[in-house]
Amino acid sequence: MIEHGLNMDRQLLISAIIEHAAAQYGSQIVSSRETHGPIHRYTYRECARRSRRLAQALRRLGLQPGDFAATLAWNNHRHLEAYFAVSGSGLAIHTCNPRLHLDQLAYVLDHAGDTALLFDATFAPLVAALAPRCPRIRHWIALCERAHMPPLEGLPGLLCYEELIAPETGQYAWPDLDERTAAALCYTSGTTGHPKGALYTHRALILNALTVTTPGILSLAAEDSVLPIVPMFHINAWCIPYAAPIAGSALVLPGPRLDGAALYEMMESERVTRSAGVPTVLLGLLQHVESHELELSTLRRICSGGSLVPASLIAKYAERGIELLQGWGMTETSGVATMTCLTADEAGGPQAERCGLTAKQGRTPFGVEIKVVDEDGRTLPRDGTSQGELMIRGQWIVSGYYKSETSPIVDGWLRTGDVATIDANGILQIRDRIKDLIKTGGEWISSIDVENVACNHPSVAQAAVIGVRHPKWQERPLLFVVRRPGHELARQQILDHLGAQLARICVPEEVIFLEALPVGGTGKVQKAALRAEYGDVFQ
Amino acid sequence: MIEHGLNMDRQLLISAIIEHAAAQYGSQIVSSRETHGPIHRYTYRECARRSRRLAQALRRLGLQPGDFAATLAWNNHRHLEAYFAVSGSGLAIHTCNPRLHLDQLAYVLDHAGDTALLFDATFAPLVAALAPRCPRIRHWIALCERAHMPPLEGLPGLLCYEELIAPETGQYAWPDLDERTAAALCYTSGTTGHPKGALYTHRALILNALTVTTPGILSLAAEDSVLPIVPMFHINAWCIPYAAPIAGSALVLPGPRLDGAALYEMMESERVTRSAGVPTVLLGLLQHVESHELELSTLRRICSGGSLVPASLIAKYAERGIELLQGWGMTETSGVATMTCLTADEAGGPQAERCGLTAKQGRTPFGVEIKVVDEDGRTLPRDGTSQGELMIRGQWIVSGYYKSETSPIVDGWLRTGDVATIDANGILQIRDRIKDLIKTGGEWISSIDVENVACNHPSVAQAAVIGVRHPKWQERPLLFVVRRPGHELARQQILDHLGAQLARICVPEEVIFLEALPVGGTGKVQKAALRAEYGDVFQ
Repeated sequence: MIEHGLNMDRQLLISAIIEHAAAQYGSQIVSSRETHGPIHRYTYRECARRSRRLAQALRRLGLQPGDFAATLAWNNHRHLEAYFAVSGSGLAIHTCNPRLHLDQLAYVLDHAGDTALLFDATFAPLVAALAPRCPRIRHWIALCERAHMPPLEGLPGLLCYEELIAPETGQYAWPDLDERTAAALCYTSGTTGHPKGALYTHRALILNALTVTTPGILSLAAEDSVLPIVPMFHINAWCIPYAAPIAGSALVLPGPRLDGAALYEMMESERVTRSAGVPTVLLGLLQHVESHELELSTLRRICSGGSLVPASLIAKYAERGIELLQGWGMTETSGVATMTCLTADEAGGPQAERCGLTAKQGRTPFGVEIKVVDEDGRTLPRDGTSQGELMIRGQWIVSGYYKSETSPIVDGWLRTGDVATIDANGILQIRDRIKDLIKTGGEWISSIDVENVACNHPSVAQAAVIGVRHPKWQERPLLFVVRRPGHELARQQILDHLGAQLARICVPEEVIFLEALPVGGTGKVQKAALRAEYGDVFQ
Repeated sequence: MIEHGLNMDRQLLISAIIEHAAAQYGSQIVSSRETHGPIHRYTYRECARRSRRLAQALRRLGLQPGDFAATLAWNNHRHLEAYFAVSGSGLAIHTCNPRLHLDQLAYVLDHAGDTALLFDATFAPLVAALAPRCPRIRHWIALCERAHMPPLEGLPGLLCYEELIAPETGQYAWPDLDERTAAALCYTSGTTGHPKGALYTHRALILNALTVTTPGILSLAAEDSVLPIVPMFHINAWCIPYAAPIAGSALVLPGPRLDGAALYEMMESERVTRSAGVPTVLLGLLQHVESHELELSTLRRICSGGSLVPASLIAKYAERGIELLQGWGMTETSGVATMTCLTADEAGGPQAERCGLTAKQGRTPFGVEIKVVDEDGRTLPRDGTSQGELMIRGQWIVSGYYKSETSPIVDGWLRTGDVATIDANGILQIRDRIKDLIKTGGEWISSIDVENVACNHPSVAQAAVIGVRHPKWQERPLLFVVRRPGHELARQQILDHLGAQLARICVPEEVIFLEALPVGGTGKVQKAALRAEYGDVFQ
């Protein structure tokens, strides 16, 4: 006599994702640009088989469940196989950001305790520099065939990926793990102090990925073809490498080339319907399309985040019939934590109102909750104006940092370090990073508000605002502008543009034109670098 | 020092669904047809508050976590509140099918151990008949205001829902349950023997509901408005009452009126974009729209299942720009287990091929696996022709029946009792119930194959085929036909139609025209009743 019955007690595991795709969408295509140039195409069925072979090979090398294996790789099919083979076999995949400083890379490889590193040939110089500093790494696996091996002769433990997996059968039974086992590890870019590790469980990645497939977020079905521009070393490419096989969508991995021309070519040849990336690369894609008078013939939706998505960019894509949705998330939230999700009333309202809403960071999907609190931790009203620190909790939010004394948790909620408002309909608006707020004459100014207005000027490609010490006002905003190619823009013109839309106190004290803004490992503007260089201009 | 960090360890709970909708889509509308006629509209915010008040009231009545509360109710807002209040507070909601025989109803209420029953006024006569047979039920709660109380004076424990929740504050903290706690209980319709109970966990219902929101299934976003025609007493309306607030979609509950005219009116007034129901009601809706020359101006997708969806019905809706997707599931699978999910290549292929694919039962979503096995339990090839019993396992499949000796599980897989094939692309086709297969002259005939061809005749509204004992051939197929209103159709015409498309052995021996087919509690054709009445016609 079974007293309860209930549903089967089965674990949510990364290995089940690729086996699902192989069983139900076995002929669906994964397209991948090789590091040496050409496009490689194969099916999920083949991807699953090669993932199993890699899992067998890693076991043969002596890697055990609980070990960590690192990657330094672009978005490509071998990196995808590593996603499934490493996590699926009970190890955790530590996706390293190659844009980190060498010291930081050496630090995170040591801190994670990685014993193997899989890398694309591009990063051979980095590997050569890291090897002497990373004695625990016994296996350096180049993600290529023998013919494309990078010149690293003499590196102990150097292996060729294709030769490594060649002898394996692909007849491998994935272990039946607990879904709360660690599956992947990402480090924050660490603008202050050491990078901190966010360790994700199988369960969290799957719940996040399943949510990414829903129509409110990326909307992935078997009819779709999705190209994640966001790197697989950046918060697991917002879980798209898991979401695509969950949905049965074709997956398009752009390799090392993320310029507008390369992305455009791949989007057209692979009939891409969905994409995701930071605003900068989307701007590059748009500029390429505009300047060559091209059409994005199949693309219909893009999710963006990582920094504020300019309203003008949303409008430009909308003119081409492409929805550009804005979201918010961070390494600590395993990817997407909010996304523009308008109701029929909101979407059908006057254009100005709709644009106002799409310029915000949107709503949390089921599984994640947010609140804003004042300095004493009291919850502030959801009125769209009460501004405080954003706190978050939920299924795919971390509970702490890997092997760290630093706790970002207060009463079960993660402190984000972002200043935000939430309106009565639950829509989040990020106002600033706490440390980027500008205190001037006793008032707080949001640097993002000013950047927002600056970016809407037609001649501005990018803008950044920092607070700079000022003898009279304590701090004053300083604006940096990168002009759009071929555009003229004078100091007074941009100041007049800002003056017409902002309170006088918010208009920057000075404007500095740059060729490019300094960006860090994740493509975000490094305000710390700007402060270091320009912090004394008003003294 | 936190060694692991990992993601927060939070449970997937039904109570979180309505709180999510209240927090993120607080102004979104739930429309509900009252049992006495008018349409009631309120927001998710109000729904959450009233659900909390009901939870408080049930506690006040003495119901404790682990108890069972039953419902006999249509799809309406009070039933929805019961979904959240009962499961959310740690009880399990037992949704009874009012179309079951009175003896079966008394049996399931006793077997479940229900101590309260919430019912719509429609079912007052049923309640009057059940009360003397159900001594364990202490509270009979009529889902209405005082003004609409049914005439049940003298029934001990009779309560008015609105009066019951009126004194409560709605200030209630949902308990933090284990996600593997029982949340809901449905009984099979029990064509042979007693009905058997499928007991669902919070986790299983949520994973199923989240999957229902994905673009491959119902595709629910905040812009959508969804009307579940499938009753909330039938496998939790395929989890749509959970899926809509998860997605932030508007929810439209049609109450007792499921005729074409009533459904059409509500679909238009509430701007419904998504719906779901069995083929019979979808046929009724289409006939109403056709005969009154109307337009379904907002509806874009319908999911159907429960019995074979005729290709002609899919085509008729397609002409109106409405996708009619076909799925398969059963009480034991907590709802959807497969759905038409075509890749771009399949959807873009020649129309005949596409129609062939949409006429099948589709693919499993992530979280569910299928196989077909022969009589010795050996897995058969996925070739689209090897036919065997369908076996299923996954996140929302039951592991047994509630308080039952009968186990439907073999080696971790649930036996479905359906005969099916799976093709090389993973697409399922149900061939028959094992017990409905017809054995004639040593060959097996699928009754569904024959019904399929019969239904595609333009003058056929419904068709059913059973095997009938035959002195020479052991069994021969007997066809029952319901003609479309206003259509003529003679015996020889339908036999010719079948003879042109089927092997001679499959052409029915005789045709019987009926005004209607006998249907059971869940709206399915009762072949057992047909066999009982016509089983001897060839003797």
